[in-house]
Amino acid sequence: MIIVLKKEATEEQIQHILEKTTKLGLKPNISRGVERTVIGLIGPEDVLRVTPLEVFPGVENVIPVLAPFKLVSREFKKENSIVKIREGLEIGGKKLHVFAGPCSVENKALMLSIAKKVKDAGAAVLRGGAFKPRTSPYDFQGLGEEGLKYLKEAGEKYNLATITEVMDSRDVELISKYVDILQIGARNMQNFSLLKEVGKLHKPVLLKRGISATVKEWLMSAEYILSNGNFSVILCERGIRTYETGTRNTLDINAVPLVKSMSHLPILVDPSHATGAWNLVGAAAKASVAAGADALMIEVHENPEEALSDGSQSLLPEKFENLMKELKNIAKAVGREL
Amino acid sequence: MIIVLKKEATEEQIQHILEKTTKLGLKPNISRGVERTVIGLIGPEDVLRVTPLEVFPGVENVIPVLAPFKLVSREFKKENSIVKIREGLEIGGKKLHVFAGPCSVENKALMLSIAKKVKDAGAAVLRGGAFKPRTSPYDFQGLGEEGLKYLKEAGEKYNLATITEVMDSRDVELISKYVDILQIGARNMQNFSLLKEVGKLHKPVLLKRGISATVKEWLMSAEYILSNGNFSVILCERGIRTYETGTRNTLDINAVPLVKSMSHLPILVDPSHATGAWNLVGAAAKASVAAGADALMIEVHENPEEALSDGSQSLLPEKFENLMKELKNIAKAVGREL
Amino acid sequence: MIIVLKKEATEEQIQHILEKTTKLGLKPNISRGVERTVIGLIGPEDVLRVTPLEVFPGVENVIPVLAPFKLVSREFKKENSIVKIREGLEIGGKKLHVFAGPCSVENKALMLSIAKKVKDAGAAVLRGGAFKPRTSPYDFQGLGEEGLKYLKEAGEKYNLATITEVMDSRDVELISKYVDILQIGARNMQNFSLLKEVGKLHKPVLLKRGISATVKEWLMSAEYILSNGNFSVILCERGIRTYETGTRNTLDINAVPLVKSMSHLPILVDPSHATGAWNLVGAAAKASVAAGADALMIEVHENPEEALSDGSQSLLPEKFENLMKELKNIAKAVGREL
Amino acid sequence: MIIVLKKEATEEQIQHILEKTTKLGLKPNISRGVERTVIGLIGPEDVLRVTPLEVFPGVENVIPVLAPFKLVSREFKKENSIVKIREGLEIGGKKLHVFAGPCSVENKALMLSIAKKVKDAGAAVLRGGAFKPRTSPYDFQGLGEEGLKYLKEAGEKYNLATITEVMDSRDVELISKYVDILQIGARNMQNFSLLKEVGKLHKPVLLKRGISATVKEWLMSAEYILSNGNFSVILCERGIRTYETGTRNTLDINAVPLVKSMSHLPILVDPSHATGAWNLVGAAAKASVAAGADALMIEVHENPEEALSDGSQSLLPEKFENLMKELKNIAKAVGREL
Repeated sequence: MIIVLKKEATEEQIQHILEKTTKLGLKPNISRGVERTVIGLIGPEDVLRVTPLEVFPGVENVIPVLAPFKLVSREFKKENSIVKIREGLEIGGKKLHVFAGPCSVENKALMLSIAKKVKDAGAAVLRGGAFKPRTSPYDFQGLGEEGLKYLKEAGEKYNLATITEVMDSRDVELISKYVDILQIGARNMQNFSLLKEVGKLHKPVLLKRGISATVKEWLMSAEYILSNGNFSVILCERGIRTYETGTRNTLDINAVPLVKSMSHLPILVDPSHATGAWNLVGAAAKASVAAGADALMIEVHENPEEALSDGSQSLLPEKFENLMKELKNIAKAVGREL
Repeated sequence: MIIVLKKEATEEQIQHILEKTTKLGLKPNISRGVERTVIGLIGPEDVLRVTPLEVFPGVENVIPVLAPFKLVSREFKKENSIVKIREGLEIGGKKLHVFAGPCSVENKALMLSIAKKVKDAGAAVLRGGAFKPRTSPYDFQGLGEEGLKYLKEAGEKYNLATITEVMDSRDVELISKYVDILQIGARNMQNFSLLKEVGKLHKPVLLKRGISATVKEWLMSAEYILSNGNFSVILCERGIRTYETGTRNTLDINAVPLVKSMSHLPILVDPSHATGAWNLVGAAAKASVAAGADALMIEVHENPEEALSDGSQSLLPEKFENLMKELKNIAKAVGREL
Repeated sequence: MIIVLKKEATEEQIQHILEKTTKLGLKPNISRGVERTVIGLIGPEDVLRVTPLEVFPGVENVIPVLAPFKLVSREFKKENSIVKIREGLEIGGKKLHVFAGPCSVENKALMLSIAKKVKDAGAAVLRGGAFKPRTSPYDFQGLGEEGLKYLKEAGEKYNLATITEVMDSRDVELISKYVDILQIGARNMQNFSLLKEVGKLHKPVLLKRGISATVKEWLMSAEYILSNGNFSVILCERGIRTYETGTRNTLDINAVPLVKSMSHLPILVDPSHATGAWNLVGAAAKASVAAGADALMIEVHENPEEALSDGSQSLLPEKFENLMKELKNIAKAVGREL
Repeated sequence: MIIVLKKEATEEQIQHILEKTTKLGLKPNISRGVERTVIGLIGPEDVLRVTPLEVFPGVENVIPVLAPFKLVSREFKKENSIVKIREGLEIGGKKLHVFAGPCSVENKALMLSIAKKVKDAGAAVLRGGAFKPRTSPYDFQGLGEEGLKYLKEAGEKYNLATITEVMDSRDVELISKYVDILQIGARNMQNFSLLKEVGKLHKPVLLKRGISATVKEWLMSAEYILSNGNFSVILCERGIRTYETGTRNTLDINAVPLVKSMSHLPILVDPSHATGAWNLVGAAAKASVAAGADALMIEVHENPEEALSDGSQSLLPEKFENLMKELKNIAKAVGREL
């Protein structure tokens, strides 16, 4: 931690800071420059973090030196983490994987039909929401446990792993019985009760980035899960909120290599939410693979005209199949496989 | 709902849309312009909202005509709503009220001492967090139920109503026993499980705006609470996330009159979080009253140097007392009382 | 400047940095912590600023200690600057002033008529655009020199000072002949050629904040003007671009006290552009005065239905007159005059 | 244009709107729904655009049906535009091209040396700034005409086309003599005087997106150039400003396919500015090609430690050479060539 003092800071103020911080077990190191005096503080991060140094008289600015996360950082673990979903299915290695399926589980027939098609096209994980976070209380809220059953059945029939979103701490146990991966949605990235709950599981978690979360905050949320004991975390970039209204969200493609440089965790990109428009999904998916994503999650629906949610960003199965072929080529061009 | 067709939309595509929408019970009304054909749709909003008209072939753009919320809208209720906290304490009328207290309940002595000071200065509601949403899992997470007890005791001793944040659906019942107002924090504005839970209570709720929520989304979240039966909702503007890094958040002062024009619900401003710096809190508080806020929530701490959270944005009791005097003058200047 | 080294930085890399910076005339000061080694650099800011320390091997992060501006800073000049427009008209003192008028100078009759009305209501400066920055090349582009003549005539007739926008370095001389204050628009805040040009004048300049400029960048643009010799600069907050689409811009009310703490220059707020809606202008104007603004600029038009630009954010003269009365009360409540 | 009326709009207000718009030569078409009455307006766009319909009594909302630009739109021209730089060098066709070079022209030797290296690696256009837009008035402002000479000499020697930024209308003529492509920088995207000036030239223009410009505003700025007669415009996505501070800007990769769907103009991506960090440039460049960009502009410097600007985002020549190889593979994977 570095404390920059005001130009007019008095000797008395400086002494007060030195005494207080020494008492807290920190080692202050003072440098008196021409324009400013600067105090470097060494000591336990926990103490540093909770001491509101900004309010001490004479302080102009407090600058943290270390990142606030530990377990998720590259510094903690140099090599890439590989999250094992089940036998033969790992995220974060040379082989890329695609998660696909409808936004919501709408009925059994649809789930089976789409499952077959995405499997044939090469997907490895089947997605489908059973508990839906909807901005409006009047919109379709999901089928609940019934939906989980359809998802599980479709996954088993076509040998696909499954993923669904969990929105409430009280549902964690139930949902865990049905799916292979639990998804924490963007709106719940800082629902700390929920993060702690999934942190106690032995099940992979897909952690979506909050709609206006910085990469640091996102990694801090992952830290909540790891620090509770669950290291099987996959990060999910799904677009951020910006001033641009031409697309539903802005895919932060820079975040892919940035996360890779800061953390050992694998990263998946969701081009469907990141664009919000089916005709942009393909370009965004290709860009994500080129930028180094470890996996993709793509919404596919047989009849978008009748989808109960997110119809406008869903690909038709034929379009998805074609996209998978193009993605294979890009994967190869960057030394990966799909 | 208005559908704008592509210039090259075919007659067949137009017929398809007319048929489909008619089948759904909507009444389409077509206007053929020189540049574009436009279809207006009249019918039940619930049907309109869930039909993904954007994906129909030939459609360029779909434009909603009505706001997506009902119960919270000015249209639904012309006059201002007044939320009664308890006998003699109402939010939304001519008289403004100030909520004050420390960020976190840290210990009993402090709680009692600050309660006395904010009461003497004219505050009506005592705040204090017992369950804290913290970005880092390593930061102080609050005293839990013990904190609720201290808050209640301090409130009772100095005849102040009380408010605290609820972060988890499972805590709603417990917290309701101790405080007068439940606060939904910015990070949980779209935790729909929690919104439904507090919607079932007969207790006032303070709903903070999400850090990057639009005014519309914020009102939709309030709609979740009202549509579950609880009409005692106070909206809280607490600053939004923008590109500006000179302050912790950007106080969206425009939102005060904008919300007043769109909704009948009262609005409170939290200048402490909206600025993040104690030396800006006063100006932001005065601006809020001038802009038409019904209440303010201000962090006050006796010894910010030792606060366990948010020390840098807390006012000293003396500064708070002075600010209260200035606020009384501004309130008078805009025809209100404090 | 503070250099934070990577955990794995080698001794060789550290020596390379020490040598290079010493050669450049800087004095490095090294502190070796447990987690990180940190190097503080003292020396001429000009050298520090242009040396790309981030690219040196072993460097993790470079943190500036001093603000990048000088002449505009509070540190350079403790007391508030007062910008004299002409005899008896000063911005930045106890007395607040209001600039008012139509968005564009549309014709002579209108200019004279509005001038009379805003003067009667208490305005001190008449605004009106002659060269208009329009997003579309097909929109009204202003009357040019003819407009300047009408503006000047109206100002003289009703004893109002005048202000208009300058968009092109080549127009500076011409416009200077007609008006008292030159306005640099938001879109030109970083048109450095233009900043240098007005920096050479002896005429007050109103510098609008760029639509997504940080407070620091805005002050840097002011620094361009001051460093060229012109100290008569008034800063203008006019709303910033955020994700919120319910208003044209987001008035950054925090910026008012923030700028006051960082700079000695006076600050004006433009609530018309900051909201974009006439029914929000009043609340925003009152908030600005309460927050400490030194002046306001408000669009007034007699017949918004026929305004050639910005009709929807213009106040009718009667509404403006009423607002002026309310503003006087707020000014008094915060110890100012209007 | 569609006018949505307030629920409480009176018959008199409706008649007023019908009369006024008819008088202006527009054809109103009224639909009376249960909740709202809606008026569609057909007629000349120029009239529609300048009439402030929002201010008419009874109007709730005004919704434009057509995009505000014409010449740049896909509707105006279905097939992709190809911008010819010189014999054998065209942007927008199957073959991709890379622009490379230092941020600033610093001296002749450096310019020649870098030119050789980027040419050998496969670049087609040499970049280098002679007039530099710098946030601080104390930073290196460029070599001016001397710099242009070095750039031209280096381009001629190694058979590279050249590009440099023009910041001032007064410099357009001078700069046009030396380079093949004029660049309009992000800060000047809405410097309308400058846009008109380059619109009169017969020379390709690279139009950078403003730091917080929407895609629509960017296309409107291009419209300024085309409507003045110059159709040789290449759009440049260079990252936008968001709340994320982990990177200098946020590369809006969605904008690549979005622009392609809205406009016929070619698009180039500048991954150096879009990331601001050399270690992220490669991933961003690859993503851009995968997403469909027609060209890239990459900063290359032999000795970033001594670069006079943007050292931290410049690639070393070796790194650039390797990246070019990877880009060729990605180009092939998406059916292009490099």
